[in-house]
Amino acid sequence: MIVPNPDRRSERARRAILSAALELCVEESFARLTMEGVAKRAGVGKQTIYRWWPSKSAVLLEAIDDRAGDTLDFPDTGDLVADLRTQMIQLARTLTDPVFAASLRGLIAAAQSDADAAESLYRTLMKPRVELCAERLKKAQQAGQVRPEVAPEDLIELLYAPLYYRLLLQHRPIDEAQIGTILDLIFPSLAPA
Amino acid sequence: MIVPNPDRRSERARRAILSAALELCVEESFARLTMEGVAKRAGVGKQTIYRWWPSKSAVLLEAIDDRAGDTLDFPDTGDLVADLRTQMIQLARTLTDPVFAASLRGLIAAAQSDADAAESLYRTLMKPRVELCAERLKKAQQAGQVRPEVAPEDLIELLYAPLYYRLLLQHRPIDEAQIGTILDLIFPSLAPA
Repeated sequence: MIVPNPDRRSERARRAILSAALELCVEESFARLTMEGVAKRAGVGKQTIYRWWPSKSAVLLEAIDDRAGDTLDFPDTGDLVADLRTQMIQLARTLTDPVFAASLRGLIAAAQSDADAAESLYRTLMKPRVELCAERLKKAQQAGQVRPEVAPEDLIELLYAPLYYRLLLQHRPIDEAQIGTILDLIFPSLAPA
Repeated sequence: MIVPNPDRRSERARRAILSAALELCVEESFARLTMEGVAKRAGVGKQTIYRWWPSKSAVLLEAIDDRAGDTLDFPDTGDLVADLRTQMIQLARTLTDPVFAASLRGLIAAAQSDADAAESLYRTLMKPRVELCAERLKKAQQAGQVRPEVAPEDLIELLYAPLYYRLLLQHRPIDEAQIGTILDLIFPSLAPA
Protein backbone atom coordinates (compact mmCIF):
# COMPACT_ATOMS: atom_id res chain seq x y z
CA MET A 1 0.00 0.00 0.00
CA ILE A 2 1.32 3.46 -0.89
CA VAL A 3 1.04 5.82 2.11
CA PRO A 4 0.95 9.53 1.18
CA ASN A 5 3.85 11.36 2.79
CA PRO A 6 2.34 14.23 4.82
CA ASP A 7 5.62 16.17 4.87
CA ARG A 8 5.85 16.13 1.11
CA ARG A 9 2.20 17.11 0.82
CA SER A 10 2.76 20.00 3.23
CA GLU A 11 5.79 21.16 1.30
CA ARG A 12 3.77 21.06 -1.92
CA ALA A 13 1.01 23.16 -0.30
CA ARG A 14 3.58 25.57 1.13
CA ARG A 15 5.13 26.14 -2.30
CA ALA A 16 1.73 26.57 -3.95
CA ILE A 17 0.77 29.19 -1.35
CA LEU A 18 4.03 31.14 -1.71
CA SER A 19 3.79 31.11 -5.52
CA ALA A 20 0.15 32.21 -5.40
CA ALA A 21 1.01 35.12 -3.08
CA LEU A 22 3.79 36.34 -5.39
CA GLU A 23 1.64 36.02 -8.51
CA LEU A 24 -1.35 37.83 -7.01
CA CYS A 25 0.79 40.61 -5.58
CA VAL A 26 2.17 41.50 -9.00
CA GLU A 27 -1.19 40.98 -10.77
CA GLU A 28 -3.36 42.91 -8.31
CA SER A 29 -1.05 44.93 -5.98
CA PHE A 30 -0.21 44.24 -2.36
CA ALA A 31 -3.09 46.40 -1.14
CA ARG A 32 -5.64 44.14 -2.89
CA LEU A 33 -3.97 40.86 -1.88
CA THR A 34 -6.12 38.76 0.48
CA MET A 35 -5.67 35.43 2.23
CA GLU A 36 -8.86 34.25 0.48
CA GLY A 37 -7.38 35.06 -2.91
CA VAL A 38 -4.12 33.27 -2.10
CA ALA A 39 -6.01 30.18 -0.84
CA LYS A 40 -8.15 30.04 -3.97
CA ARG A 41 -5.20 30.43 -6.35
CA ALA A 42 -3.15 27.85 -4.42
CA GLY A 43 -6.05 25.38 -4.24
CA VAL A 44 -5.94 25.08 -0.44
CA GLY A 45 -8.30 26.04 2.35
CA LYS A 46 -7.84 29.44 4.03
CA GLN A 47 -7.28 27.64 7.35
CA THR A 48 -4.21 25.91 5.89
CA ILE A 49 -2.64 29.30 5.30
CA TYR A 50 -3.57 30.66 8.74
CA ARG A 51 -2.10 27.54 10.35
CA TRP A 52 1.34 28.57 9.05
CA TRP A 53 1.26 32.36 8.70
CA PRO A 54 -0.53 35.05 10.72
CA SER A 55 -0.94 37.59 7.88
CA LYS A 56 -0.52 38.25 4.17
CA SER A 57 2.68 40.18 4.98
CA ALA A 58 4.10 37.07 6.63
CA VAL A 59 3.27 34.87 3.61
CA LEU A 60 4.79 37.32 1.19
CA LEU A 61 7.91 37.89 3.28
CA GLU A 62 8.61 34.15 3.30
CA ALA A 63 7.89 34.01 -0.43
CA ILE A 64 10.42 36.69 -1.38
CA ASP A 65 12.99 35.42 1.11
CA ASP A 66 12.67 31.98 -0.55
CA ARG A 67 12.86 33.53 -4.00
CA ALA A 68 16.03 35.48 -3.17
CA GLY A 69 17.48 32.34 -1.55
CA ASP A 70 21.27 32.34 -1.58
CA THR A 71 21.57 34.32 -4.83
CA LEU A 72 22.51 37.37 -2.73
CA ASP A 73 25.43 35.69 -0.93
CA PHE A 74 28.86 37.28 -1.27
CA PRO A 75 31.61 35.83 -3.42
CA ASP A 76 35.15 36.07 -2.05
CA THR A 77 37.73 36.33 -4.84
CA GLY A 78 40.02 38.49 -2.71
CA ASP A 79 39.06 41.61 -4.71
CA LEU A 80 36.51 43.44 -2.55
CA VAL A 81 35.24 45.90 -5.15
CA ALA A 82 34.82 43.15 -7.77
CA ASP A 83 32.94 41.00 -5.25
CA LEU A 84 30.65 43.86 -4.22
CA ARG A 85 29.98 44.63 -7.88
CA THR A 86 29.03 40.98 -8.56
CA GLN A 87 26.69 40.85 -5.57
CA MET A 88 25.14 44.28 -6.19
CA ILE A 89 24.44 43.44 -9.85
CA GLN A 90 22.67 40.30 -8.65
CA LEU A 91 20.68 42.41 -6.17
CA ALA A 92 19.79 44.86 -8.97
CA ARG A 93 18.45 41.90 -10.99
CA THR A 94 16.39 40.82 -7.99
CA LEU A 95 15.03 44.32 -7.30
CA THR A 96 14.06 44.78 -10.96
CA ASP A 97 12.30 41.40 -11.19
CA PRO A 98 8.66 42.60 -11.41
CA VAL A 99 7.40 39.88 -9.06
CA PHE A 100 10.04 40.51 -6.41
CA ALA A 101 9.76 44.30 -6.76
CA ALA A 102 5.97 44.37 -6.37
CA SER A 103 6.16 42.19 -3.27
CA LEU A 104 9.00 44.03 -1.60
CA ARG A 105 7.47 47.44 -2.34
CA GLY A 106 4.20 46.18 -0.84
CA LEU A 107 5.95 44.90 2.28
CA ILE A 108 7.88 48.13 2.78
CA ALA A 109 4.63 50.07 2.33
CA ALA A 110 2.89 47.87 4.93
CA ALA A 111 5.82 48.39 7.31
CA GLN A 112 5.06 52.14 7.39
CA SER A 113 1.88 51.62 9.39
CA ASP A 114 2.75 48.36 11.18
CA ALA A 115 5.78 48.25 13.48
CA ASP A 116 5.69 44.42 13.72
CA ALA A 117 5.77 44.13 9.92
CA ALA A 118 8.73 46.55 9.84
CA GLU A 119 10.59 44.52 12.44
CA SER A 120 9.90 41.19 10.66
CA LEU A 121 10.96 42.61 7.31
CA TYR A 122 14.27 43.84 8.66
CA ARG A 123 14.94 40.71 10.73
CA THR A 124 13.99 38.15 8.06
CA LEU A 125 15.04 39.68 4.78
CA MET A 126 17.66 42.36 5.43
CA LYS A 127 19.56 41.50 8.61
CA PRO A 128 20.98 38.09 7.57
CA ARG A 129 22.24 39.62 4.31
CA VAL A 130 23.67 42.69 6.09
CA GLU A 131 25.58 40.26 8.31
CA LEU A 132 27.01 38.39 5.31
CA CYS A 133 28.14 41.67 3.78
CA ALA A 134 29.66 42.80 7.09
CA GLU A 135 31.71 39.56 7.21
CA ARG A 136 33.02 40.18 3.71
CA LEU A 137 33.93 43.79 4.61
CA LYS A 138 35.72 42.66 7.80
CA LYS A 139 37.83 40.25 5.76
CA ALA A 140 38.73 43.14 3.44
CA GLN A 141 39.71 45.20 6.47
CA GLN A 142 41.91 42.35 7.74
CA ALA A 143 43.50 42.20 4.28
CA GLY A 144 44.27 45.94 4.50
CA GLN A 145 41.87 46.93 1.68
CA VAL A 146 39.56 49.12 3.79
CA ARG A 147 40.50 51.48 6.61
CA PRO A 148 40.03 49.67 9.95
CA GLU A 149 38.02 52.48 11.56
CA VAL A 150 35.16 52.19 9.04
CA ALA A 151 32.15 50.43 10.63
CA PRO A 152 30.89 47.79 8.15
CA GLU A 153 27.22 48.55 8.97
CA ASP A 154 27.71 52.22 8.03
CA LEU A 155 29.43 51.37 4.77
CA ILE A 156 26.68 48.85 3.92
CA GLU A 157 24.00 51.54 4.26
CA LEU A 158 25.95 53.85 1.99
CA LEU A 159 26.38 51.15 -0.67
CA TYR A 160 22.85 49.75 -0.64
CA ALA A 161 20.49 52.57 0.38
CA PRO A 162 20.63 54.21 -3.09
CA LEU A 163 19.25 51.01 -4.66
CA TYR A 164 16.26 50.98 -2.30
CA TYR A 165 15.81 54.72 -2.83
CA ARG A 166 15.26 54.09 -6.56
CA LEU A 167 13.08 51.03 -5.87
CA LEU A 168 10.72 53.17 -3.80
CA LEU A 169 10.80 56.49 -5.64
CA GLN A 170 10.97 55.01 -9.16
CA HIS A 171 12.49 58.21 -10.55
CA ARG A 172 15.58 56.51 -12.03
CA PRO A 173 16.28 52.87 -12.99
CA ILE A 174 18.26 50.45 -10.83
CA ASP A 175 21.00 49.20 -13.15
CA GLU A 176 24.69 48.38 -13.55
CA ALA A 177 25.49 52.03 -14.26
CA GLN A 178 24.15 52.99 -10.83
CA ILE A 179 26.26 50.33 -9.16
CA GLY A 180 29.40 51.45 -11.00
CA THR A 181 28.75 55.03 -9.90
CA ILE A 182 28.25 54.07 -6.25
CA LEU A 183 31.46 52.03 -6.13
CA ASP A 184 33.45 54.71 -8.00
CA LEU A 185 32.25 57.46 -5.66
CA ILE A 186 32.86 55.59 -2.41
CA PHE A 187 35.89 53.39 -2.88
CA PRO A 188 38.73 55.80 -3.52
CA SER A 189 38.30 57.10 0.04
CA LEU A 190 38.32 53.75 1.82
CA ALA A 191 41.84 52.50 1.24
CA PRO A 192 44.18 52.92 4.23
CA ALA A 193 46.37 56.03 3.91
CA MET B 1 -19.23 98.22 6.51
CA ILE B 2 -16.62 95.52 6.92
CA VAL B 3 -16.59 93.20 3.93
CA PRO B 4 -15.12 89.73 4.64
CA ASN B 5 -12.12 89.08 2.45
CA PRO B 6 -12.78 85.80 0.60
CA ASP B 7 -9.06 85.26 -0.10
CA ARG B 8 -8.21 85.52 3.58
CA ARG B 9 -11.09 83.19 4.47
CA SER B 10 -9.88 80.67 1.87
CA GLU B 11 -6.35 80.86 3.22
CA ARG B 12 -7.67 80.25 6.76
CA ALA B 13 -9.61 77.20 5.54
CA ARG B 14 -6.59 75.95 3.61
CA ARG B 15 -4.38 76.16 6.69
CA ALA B 16 -7.00 74.48 8.89
CA ILE B 17 -7.29 71.61 6.39
CA LEU B 18 -3.52 71.11 6.12
CA SER B 19 -3.08 71.16 9.91
CA ALA B 20 -5.96 68.73 10.38
CA ALA B 21 -4.45 66.31 7.84
CA LEU B 22 -1.06 66.36 9.59
CA GLU B 23 -2.59 65.92 13.06
CA LEU B 24 -4.83 63.04 12.01
CA CYS B 25 -2.06 61.27 10.13
CA VAL B 26 0.13 61.12 13.24
CA GLU B 27 -2.80 60.32 15.57
CA GLU B 28 -4.43 57.62 13.45
CA SER B 29 -1.96 56.59 10.69
CA PHE B 30 -2.09 57.43 7.01
CA ALA B 31 -4.05 54.26 6.22
CA ARG B 32 -6.93 55.40 8.46
CA LEU B 33 -6.88 59.03 7.31
CA THR B 34 -10.06 60.04 5.43
CA MET B 35 -11.25 63.21 3.73
CA GLU B 36 -14.32 63.11 6.05
CA GLY B 37 -12.05 63.05 9.11
CA VAL B 38 -9.97 65.95 7.83
CA ALA B 39 -13.09 68.00 7.01
CA LYS B 40 -14.55 67.39 10.47
CA ARG B 41 -11.33 68.30 12.30
CA ALA B 42 -10.81 71.40 10.14
CA GLY B 43 -14.42 72.53 10.55
CA VAL B 44 -15.11 72.70 6.82
CA GLY B 45 -17.34 70.79 4.43
CA LYS B 46 -15.89 67.80 2.57
CA GLN B 47 -16.66 69.57 -0.73
CA THR B 48 -14.32 72.42 0.25
CA ILE B 49 -11.46 69.93 0.43
CA TYR B 50 -12.36 68.21 -2.84
CA ARG B 51 -12.53 71.58 -4.56
CA TRP B 52 -8.79 72.05 -3.92
CA TRP B 53 -7.31 68.54 -3.70
CA PRO B 54 -8.23 65.30 -5.48
CA SER B 55 -7.12 62.90 -2.72
CA LYS B 56 -5.85 62.59 0.85
CA SER B 57 -2.33 62.04 -0.56
CA ALA B 58 -2.54 65.40 -2.33
CA VAL B 59 -3.65 67.21 0.86
CA LEU B 60 -0.89 65.63 2.90
CA LEU B 61 1.78 66.26 0.29
CA GLU B 62 0.95 69.98 0.28
CA ALA B 63 0.88 69.95 4.08
CA ILE B 64 4.38 68.52 4.49
CA ASP B 65 5.79 70.61 1.64
CA ASP B 66 4.43 73.70 3.46
CA ARG B 67 5.80 72.47 6.78
CA ALA B 68 9.29 71.90 5.33
CA GLY B 69 9.08 75.31 3.60
CA ASP B 70 12.51 76.79 2.99
CA THR B 71 14.11 75.18 6.07
CA LEU B 72 15.80 72.70 3.73
CA ASP B 73 17.46 75.32 1.52
CA PHE B 74 21.25 75.22 1.21
CA PRO B 75 23.53 77.71 2.90
CA ASP B 76 26.59 78.84 0.96
CA THR B 77 29.49 79.68 3.25
CA GLY B 78 32.04 78.53 0.67
CA ASP B 79 32.75 75.37 2.71
CA LEU B 80 30.79 72.61 0.95
CA VAL B 81 31.05 69.92 3.64
CA ALA B 82 30.05 72.39 6.38
CA ASP B 83 27.08 73.54 4.29
CA LEU B 84 25.95 69.98 3.57
CA ARG B 85 26.27 69.13 7.27
CA THR B 86 24.10 72.13 8.23
CA GLN B 87 21.44 71.22 5.68
CA MET B 88 21.48 67.49 6.44
CA ILE B 89 21.15 68.12 10.19
CA GLN B 90 18.11 70.26 9.42
CA LEU B 91 16.72 67.45 7.24
CA ALA B 92 17.35 64.95 10.06
CA ARG B 93 15.32 67.21 12.39
CA THR B 94 12.53 67.30 9.83
CA LEU B 95 12.56 63.52 9.26
CA THR B 96 12.49 62.83 13.02
CA ASP B 97 9.62 65.27 13.66
CA PRO B 98 6.83 62.73 14.44
CA VAL B 99 4.21 64.66 12.45
CA PHE B 100 6.39 65.03 9.38
CA ALA B 101 7.70 61.44 9.63
CA ALA B 102 4.23 59.87 9.89
CA SER B 103 3.01 61.86 6.89
CA LEU B 104 6.02 61.22 4.69
CA ARG B 105 6.11 57.49 5.55
CA GLY B 106 2.39 57.31 4.68
CA LEU B 107 2.93 59.08 1.36
CA ILE B 108 5.86 56.85 0.41
CA ALA B 109 3.76 53.80 1.34
CA ALA B 110 0.88 55.06 -0.85
CA ALA B 111 3.33 55.64 -3.70
CA GLN B 112 4.10 51.90 -3.78
CA SER B 113 0.68 51.05 -5.21
CA ASP B 114 -0.12 54.34 -6.99
CA ALA B 115 2.18 55.54 -9.77
CA ASP B 116 0.56 59.01 -9.84
CA ALA B 117 1.17 59.45 -6.11
CA ALA B 118 4.80 58.40 -6.62
CA GLU B 119 5.24 60.91 -9.43
CA SER B 120 3.62 63.75 -7.44
CA LEU B 121 5.70 62.98 -4.38
CA TYR B 122 8.94 63.09 -6.31
CA ARG B 123 7.97 66.17 -8.35
CA THR B 124 6.57 68.25 -5.48
CA LEU B 125 8.68 67.37 -2.48
CA MET B 126 11.98 65.92 -3.66
CA LYS B 127 12.83 67.34 -7.09
CA PRO B 128 12.94 71.07 -6.20
CA ARG B 129 15.25 70.26 -3.25
CA VAL B 130 17.43 67.95 -5.34
CA GLU B 131 17.83 70.85 -7.79
CA LEU B 132 18.89 73.24 -5.00
CA CYS B 133 21.46 70.72 -3.81
CA ALA B 134 22.71 70.16 -7.36
CA GLU B 135 23.27 73.93 -7.72
CA ARG B 136 25.30 74.00 -4.50
CA LEU B 137 27.39 71.03 -5.69
CA LYS B 138 28.02 72.64 -9.09
CA LYS B 139 29.33 75.76 -7.35
CA ALA B 140 31.66 73.54 -5.32
CA GLN B 141 32.85 71.93 -8.56
CA GLN B 142 33.49 75.38 -10.07
CA ALA B 143 35.45 76.25 -6.91
CA GLY B 144 37.59 73.12 -7.41
CA GLN B 145 36.29 71.37 -4.26
CA VAL B 146 34.71 68.39 -6.02
CA ARG B 147 36.00 66.47 -9.04
CA PRO B 148 34.30 67.84 -12.18
CA GLU B 149 33.32 64.40 -13.54
CA VAL B 150 31.05 63.63 -10.55
CA ALA B 151 27.37 63.99 -11.53
CA PRO B 152 25.61 66.02 -8.80
CA GLU B 153 22.46 63.85 -9.01
CA ASP B 154 24.50 60.70 -8.28
CA LEU B 155 26.27 62.27 -5.34
CA ILE B 156 22.95 63.54 -3.94
CA GLU B 157 21.52 60.01 -3.91
CA LEU B 158 24.58 58.73 -2.09
CA LEU B 159 24.36 61.46 0.55
CA TYR B 160 20.61 61.37 1.17
CA ALA B 161 19.41 57.82 0.47
CA PRO B 162 20.79 56.49 3.81
CA LEU B 163 18.54 58.94 5.71
CA TYR B 164 15.41 57.71 3.88
CA TYR B 165 16.58 54.10 4.35
CA ARG B 166 16.47 54.60 8.13
CA LEU B 167 13.19 56.54 7.93
CA LEU B 168 11.53 53.57 6.22
CA LEU B 169 13.23 50.61 7.91
CA GLN B 170 13.39 52.18 11.38
CA HIS B 171 16.26 49.88 12.41
CA ARG B 172 18.65 52.70 13.39
CA PRO B 173 18.02 56.35 14.35
CA ILE B 174 18.48 59.28 11.97
CA ASP B 175 20.86 61.59 13.84
CA GLU B 176 23.93 63.81 13.62
CA ALA B 177 26.22 60.80 14.04
CA GLN B 178 24.81 59.26 10.87
CA ILE B 179 25.38 62.48 8.95
CA GLY B 180 28.96 62.75 10.21
CA THR B 181 29.60 59.17 9.09
CA ILE B 182 28.14 59.72 5.62
CA LEU B 183 30.23 62.85 5.03
CA ASP B 184 33.39 61.24 6.44
CA LEU B 185 32.99 58.16 4.24
CA ILE B 186 32.25 60.01 1.01
CA PHE B 187 34.19 63.24 1.02
CA PRO B 188 37.82 62.15 1.09
CA SER B 189 37.33 60.66 -2.38
CA LEU B 190 35.74 63.69 -4.02
CA ALA B 191 38.54 66.24 -4.03
CA PRO B 192 40.30 66.67 -7.36
CA ALA B 193 43.57 64.68 -7.53
